[in-house]
Amino acid sequence: MSTRSITTAKSIIYSEHGIPKDVISVHTHQLPDPKGNQVILKSLGFPINPSDINQLEGVYPSKPEKTLEYGTEKPSAIAGNECLYEVIELGSGVQDLKLGDRVIPLFSNSGTWTSHSIAAEDKLIKLPKDISTVFGATISVNPTTAYQLVNDFGLEKGDWLIQNAGTSAVSQAVAQIAKTKGINVISVIRDRPNLQETIDKLTKQGAAKVITEEQNGDRGVSAEIAKLTEGKLKIALNSVSGKSSSNIARKLAPDSTIITYGGMSKQPVTFPTSLFIFKNLKAFGFWVTENNKKDPDSKRRTVADLVKLYQNQQLEELSVHSNDWIYDEFSDEQIKELIVNALENSSGGKQFITVK
Amino acid sequence: MSTRSITTAKSIIYSEHGIPKDVISVHTHQLPDPKGNQVILKSLGFPINPSDINQLEGVYPSKPEKTLEYGTEKPSAIAGNECLYEVIELGSGVQDLKLGDRVIPLFSNSGTWTSHSIAAEDKLIKLPKDISTVFGATISVNPTTAYQLVNDFGLEKGDWLIQNAGTSAVSQAVAQIAKTKGINVISVIRDRPNLQETIDKLTKQGAAKVITEEQNGDRGVSAEIAKLTEGKLKIALNSVSGKSSSNIARKLAPDSTIITYGGMSKQPVTFPTSLFIFKNLKAFGFWVTENNKKDPDSKRRTVADLVKLYQNQQLEELSVHSNDWIYDEFSDEQIKELIVNALENSSGGKQFITVK
Repeated sequence: MSTRSITTAKSIIYSEHGIPKDVISVHTHQLPDPKGNQVILKSLGFPINPSDINQLEGVYPSKPEKTLEYGTEKPSAIAGNECLYEVIELGSGVQDLKLGDRVIPLFSNSGTWTSHSIAAEDKLIKLPKDISTVFGATISVNPTTAYQLVNDFGLEKGDWLIQNAGTSAVSQAVAQIAKTKGINVISVIRDRPNLQETIDKLTKQGAAKVITEEQNGDRGVSAEIAKLTEGKLKIALNSVSGKSSSNIARKLAPDSTIITYGGMSKQPVTFPTSLFIFKNLKAFGFWVTENNKKDPDSKRRTVADLVKLYQNQQLEELSVHSNDWIYDEFSDEQIKELIVNALENSSGGKQFITVK
Repeated sequence: MSTRSITTAKSIIYSEHGIPKDVISVHTHQLPDPKGNQVILKSLGFPINPSDINQLEGVYPSKPEKTLEYGTEKPSAIAGNECLYEVIELGSGVQDLKLGDRVIPLFSNSGTWTSHSIAAEDKLIKLPKDISTVFGATISVNPTTAYQLVNDFGLEKGDWLIQNAGTSAVSQAVAQIAKTKGINVISVIRDRPNLQETIDKLTKQGAAKVITEEQNGDRGVSAEIAKLTEGKLKIALNSVSGKSSSNIARKLAPDSTIITYGGMSKQPVTFPTSLFIFKNLKAFGFWVTENNKKDPDSKRRTVADLVKLYQNQQLEELSVHSNDWIYDEFSDEQIKELIVNALENSSGGKQFITVK
């Protein structure tokens, strides 16, 4: 007879794709004993990311395999791609992790909208205990993207980069990370009622200059930026597309690069033809999921550096709207309601589920 | 007293930019004695290229320096960027060229709309005498572009490429050159009254498949092409931009490249954002002028290979509308009229001036 107290997981699962609130359900299942290098994990929290929603809708190219291992009738997957866990039980072959350690999944698609999980220790990254639940649970998507955008495209101290969607989570992290490397950032943002307040916040975080999308399309502003950046505006980061991508590309020095990692405007990417022919513009894409799948060690290195920046107070945690899931109290109906509300409020800012 | 008969050059010059017919004039000047490694050249013919016209208009980023050396009142430049010359006089230090040799300028901006010229022999490329005037005089822009597009982006035997503007001079050369390397070409062309005839011509030249722009936007056709090309459609060549660039990019295998070298539609280049993020599309530009300025030896190698292809009947000369300039007979008014007519007829096909 085992002395082990069986771990009951409650997970947000789906077996088909469609409108997220219609396809998800709360599923209760018992986790098996951890074998070999496996550990049992208790969730501390997880975000609702736009890519998680797209994955539920079936329009995201990366998705987990659906399985019968959770004891569902139809093959199912657990939603979500990042979170922070605490280690609560160790398999007999575990070498590096200890009870109480904080860990995050190494890869996407592990299914993180869950109270508990089981994983092999080599598929986890250990974080120190002094980081916040929100910082740890949201490090894998936005800050990792930002870090790799700033570091993997040859920028050097004194160089400049320009980015649109300057208030997005990735862009805010880009500005903070770039600042620590002596790279100057121009952030383009949409006009808004509290414009000056937003400009002040982004400038304080590290942006050298903040302009509106209207100014982004203005030739006079482009001339000013050319003067300011003295041929060293070498990278543009595009997560908007449409006209905005044209206008940031136009400001680049010859032989520069524009990297597309999002398309918030839902317009195609557009560039003036002449930039390719006469200014040797190079355009690439970036997808953190694929990058980290190809090179998991780069994810480990990235997370280690991000943690240092956070500990040195050079990088803020993402700003989120937190919602509590009280594991011992919530019925399945309450859990579903919590998630559905978070999904529905997602367009107003990043929703976060704190598991208590 | 010199025994030399002075060479009188008649050149199409301009000192300001604007509507080509308004800014050009015919200028008569005496060429100096060839010194050292210089040679005196007699033109056999030259084309009117779209980029020559853009240069006169002042909208082309590459242009010759204007000079007083032709004895003009204002600093002037000779129009034109490619031609075929015959060597008619040798400086005392000339080592490789002989009287009667056929040569082309190594670089753009040498001023080729002229009856005669003077140049140092190391700024010329010698061609064999068995090539036609049209082939020699038009080798530097279109066939050189085509050759470098096919050869410089990693395509291997059995690979596929797709190109829009399939009937353009560059595209026709691309199909012929690719065929000699076992690379399969899909050419996209605009619908036209004599469609089947055009398809037959392009297929005979070497295109493996010819589709219309309407088919280029059709999902069924894309599925067919995916099946046909089996993941080996690795390069797209764009000289149209707008929707056409989106539609050829969409057909590429993951991790492929689209190269823009023209923008006939006058629309910006457009790509679906998802191709950059999820299919790792890479977009570059190509400009033969800059490429050959950076690496003149590549131009020499390219021309040598193109001549071999022509001699092996694997590459046709460009199809042109030829107009004669009879040097001994034409008045300045007649020369100007000839050039102005050629400029005005340029939209209907490539105009060529044969100098007799």
